[in-house]
Amino acid sequence: MNKVFFTPGPTELYPEVRSYIVKALDENICSINHRSSEFMEIYRSVSLNLRQLMNIPGNFHIFFLSSATECMDRIIQNCVEKRSYHFVNGAFSERFYKTAVELNKDAEKKMVEYGSGFDFSEIKITNDPELICFTQNETSTGVAIDPLEIYKIRDLYPDSLIAVDIVTSSPFINLDYNRIDCAFFSVQKGFGLPAGLGVLIVNDKCLNKAEFLKSKNVPIGSYHNFISLLENEVKFQTTETPNVLGIYLLGKVSESLNKYGVEKMRRETIIKSDILYDFFDSHSFLKPLVQNTPDRSKTIIEIDTGDKQKEIKKKLADFGIIVGSGYGKLKDTHIRIANFPMHKISDVNKIINILSLD
Amino acid sequence: MNKVFFTPGPTELYPEVRSYIVKALDENICSINHRSSEFMEIYRSVSLNLRQLMNIPGNFHIFFLSSATECMDRIIQNCVEKRSYHFVNGAFSERFYKTAVELNKDAEKKMVEYGSGFDFSEIKITNDPELICFTQNETSTGVAIDPLEIYKIRDLYPDSLIAVDIVTSSPFINLDYNRIDCAFFSVQKGFGLPAGLGVLIVNDKCLNKAEFLKSKNVPIGSYHNFISLLENEVKFQTTETPNVLGIYLLGKVSESLNKYGVEKMRRETIIKSDILYDFFDSHSFLKPLVQNTPDRSKTIIEIDTGDKQKEIKKKLADFGIIVGSGYGKLKDTHIRIANFPMHKISDVNKIINILSLD
Repeated sequence: MNKVFFTPGPTELYPEVRSYIVKALDENICSINHRSSEFMEIYRSVSLNLRQLMNIPGNFHIFFLSSATECMDRIIQNCVEKRSYHFVNGAFSERFYKTAVELNKDAEKKMVEYGSGFDFSEIKITNDPELICFTQNETSTGVAIDPLEIYKIRDLYPDSLIAVDIVTSSPFINLDYNRIDCAFFSVQKGFGLPAGLGVLIVNDKCLNKAEFLKSKNVPIGSYHNFISLLENEVKFQTTETPNVLGIYLLGKVSESLNKYGVEKMRRETIIKSDILYDFFDSHSFLKPLVQNTPDRSKTIIEIDTGDKQKEIKKKLADFGIIVGSGYGKLKDTHIRIANFPMHKISDVNKIINILSLD
Repeated sequence: MNKVFFTPGPTELYPEVRSYIVKALDENICSINHRSSEFMEIYRSVSLNLRQLMNIPGNFHIFFLSSATECMDRIIQNCVEKRSYHFVNGAFSERFYKTAVELNKDAEKKMVEYGSGFDFSEIKITNDPELICFTQNETSTGVAIDPLEIYKIRDLYPDSLIAVDIVTSSPFINLDYNRIDCAFFSVQKGFGLPAGLGVLIVNDKCLNKAEFLKSKNVPIGSYHNFISLLENEVKFQTTETPNVLGIYLLGKVSESLNKYGVEKMRRETIIKSDILYDFFDSHSFLKPLVQNTPDRSKTIIEIDTGDKQKEIKKKLADFGIIVGSGYGKLKDTHIRIANFPMHKISDVNKIINILSLD
């Protein structure tokens, strides 16, 4: 039986990935030199396609790292001398905070319970942070932050840089890049690609901060500091030999999504998430973790299954549908259903039909 | 026409890579969770196969990073508080040195000219380094260091940790791991795999050093510090979502090489390099860069082509053979021919036949 992965990521591959890989092998993409014109053309092309797909302006640079976790590390190193501030409501926002602590920064956090959003109107940031970090879509709980709230915080604290984790909301999320300073994602989520590539999108303010820190002899890292990344990016190259196949595939999937239509993909994502939330809201015992509707992620739907988690997962798996478990302390009592561009409405309906069976 | 890449890396793929990738896609390897038992089994298996292939003892840990460049960065961060020492005779040993400088360490180096080896009997290391760094096979010039010289230095400086870059000599090189402390390579060279994976092999002395530095509040990095890497490695997991496909493929290629026979592969590597050096030594104008025979790498053969580089590369390319250019300042006047396990003797002979044509 064919499996369909509705896991938060790694997840179902984008449908054309197999044919893109075969094409890459036929064209010797895995053997070309990463300083060659062929590679530079791949970088240029993925960059153009991503800019179109995600509406990334020209004053932002696109760097290729190896994971979203690495993106957090490099952002903290290059944008923070002393103080960062973190909105924490799950494992990945906690990871961003912990990264700052591990890098010896004075990191402060606003914590709310797993499954809850933030009441931004109540929040006072008092540590004068150089960087404010948002996990716009908290993969561990399925709580999303409305970008408008991020922009408001930016207006209130105009001297702080704004970093936004869009790991599991990209490419669905429509960010106004003019109102943030950096964002990042990894490709094994909404882009449906093999894991091993992180994408970091940064503006000149972040680069200037890295330059400033370097001038003060604050360590900003070695080969992947922003200055070295920029020196190479302007040539459509990377500091080290990168995951060339991953970059190639990201270009192909972005191009395909652009052809399909970004707005169409976004509308379909909303329709699929509405179908799922409507079903679970009226279910007798399977309930969405996130109670407050505006806090609900469209792309990660977390359901409290109580003591029936194993049973529910098996029921779906018997029909080839693989969903994720909850994360951390919710591991054995919750499931997570991803809703990415490659997930078909017909398979979403299949989930509902299976769970409606006696 | 089918191309054969004799480039130093990215290079020709190991012949079975295409079928391994198809198998990985059929088995949903790119969709599985990296905390799942399936992934842990992949990690366990590649670890076992690498230990057999490279004779890595049980007191060494195998970590998966994203590139050899990252390995240099993590080694310096986790093994050096203040002082490192570097043997520099090319671009990659210089990169190791520069990494230490960028991380604000007091790095000293012994430099010799590109194409030369070191006269180890003459060398006095006077900066009391915590780490001594060797680039056992300098990819930019084709100079190799006899491991016996590395062991002698270790005996002379028993308080220093010893790091060995085996990026383009692995898996050919037969290191005695009991006489070094860490080694690293990337997979797009001798393993003939797509780029995007670095492998770091470290012993407990390195881990203890990382613990010691952490206890002194010396920054050792965040998610990829040795302590975090170890915590995950003992569970056959990684800190972040890694390049799962790359790890899977490395296991398959290592298993295949083990079945083929390590010693047979090593003998063939020597035979192929002898064929190439013999030919160029007696050629009228194409001459090996490395004059001193014991300094010659078996896996990277660098040839001075003078002003005929473009012509030579084209002559070979007309028959489907792609060789590398020189590196850095030797870019336009040299070629580099890789000699890895996937390179067939018949194709090595083809190179010679083509270059023997009028």
